[in-house]
Amino acid sequence: MNKSGAVLVLSGPSGAGKSSLLNKIIDDIGECYFSISTTTRPIRTGEEEGVHYHFVSVEEFKQDIEDNNFLEYALVHGNYYGTSIKPVRKALSDGKLVLFDIDVQGNTAVNNRLGDITTSVFITPPTLSELKKRLAGRSTDSQEVMDGRLKMAKREIQRISEYDFLIINDDLQRAANLLRQIAITARMKTPNNEINDFVQKWEDIEQ
Amino acid sequence: MNKSGAVLVLSGPSGAGKSSLLNKIIDDIGECYFSISTTTRPIRTGEEEGVHYHFVSVEEFKQDIEDNNFLEYALVHGNYYGTSIKPVRKALSDGKLVLFDIDVQGNTAVNNRLGDITTSVFITPPTLSELKKRLAGRSTDSQEVMDGRLKMAKREIQRISEYDFLIINDDLQRAANLLRQIAITARMKTPNNEINDFVQKWEDIEQ
Repeated sequence: MNKSGAVLVLSGPSGAGKSSLLNKIIDDIGECYFSISTTTRPIRTGEEEGVHYHFVSVEEFKQDIEDNNFLEYALVHGNYYGTSIKPVRKALSDGKLVLFDIDVQGNTAVNNRLGDITTSVFITPPTLSELKKRLAGRSTDSQEVMDGRLKMAKREIQRISEYDFLIINDDLQRAANLLRQIAITARMKTPNNEINDFVQKWEDIEQ
Repeated sequence: MNKSGAVLVLSGPSGAGKSSLLNKIIDDIGECYFSISTTTRPIRTGEEEGVHYHFVSVEEFKQDIEDNNFLEYALVHGNYYGTSIKPVRKALSDGKLVLFDIDVQGNTAVNNRLGDITTSVFITPPTLSELKKRLAGRSTDSQEVMDGRLKMAKREIQRISEYDFLIINDDLQRAANLLRQIAITARMKTPNNEINDFVQKWEDIEQ
């Protein structure tokens, strides 16, 4: 079993430390595929297909919408952005653990389509003031971007109970240990189609 | 967090090897409380209160029904049997992992009341014929009891997808490793009331 991969959703405010946590555990949790968005936006200098985005034509994107190939998508400033299920299905069939770094709505979308093999984790700094401190420490963010992030964090934090696990990232090592444990267990989920095959065979052998 | 315990439900046919698996891992998964049923049946020689059952009076049992203190209960041959939530709450507040060995309906009942902290595992022999072999090996069971178990197994196996995890017990060591991993992760669930407290504090500090 479990040759078919599984899904781990990571949500939480920008500044929660998701990337640092992932870096600490990525070598311990087996083969992973980090889900990246698909977009119709033109590729920019320094960007790579399959690294920053999957770059596709508007026609391809629209066909994928029609084929119900997006977990979620949006039109932003004239460009489409979406989470395509196709590379996810490919990674799953290769037995990989698919990692999503998405918001609360994205978690709902993933669970609607892949709920049988999905484990979800909400990662947060211990307090709002700690989050502010961490965001302020990033000199790259404008005040406007920072305010937007704090507003979103306050909204998202209300929906933690929709997640399987909550990790309060007040100690990077402790939080990494928790996430490692959860990620290893996440792989053990069996997709419903494999369960159906198993039940079918379990009974067939009787006859 | 997680000082408040969590729940691990084990289901699967009699003969799946649940007890053997638990014995193999029980020393590795921290403090546990094995949920036992409450009954109004008189205590028999050799039985111990709190080991085989919680023995209570009919009045106590009926009061507990009225107080919604049972996850599930039934009247069998004039005696009440039920899974009381009171010792479970006590064990949870002591930070223990509460283990239930219950059927599919019991799993539904536990999830209805304690879903936020419950992880469920269905354990099964690889095939029906293997199950038959294992049950036949137990000289203690009458043909009637065995037929009843096989019938129930065939019904329950149809509902595996209601569980978080499926463990096919074809190799005791491998299955024990899976269950150990799942049990350790099961402890990491955070109850909704703790999440609410956390969110409340997270925001309070802002003001």
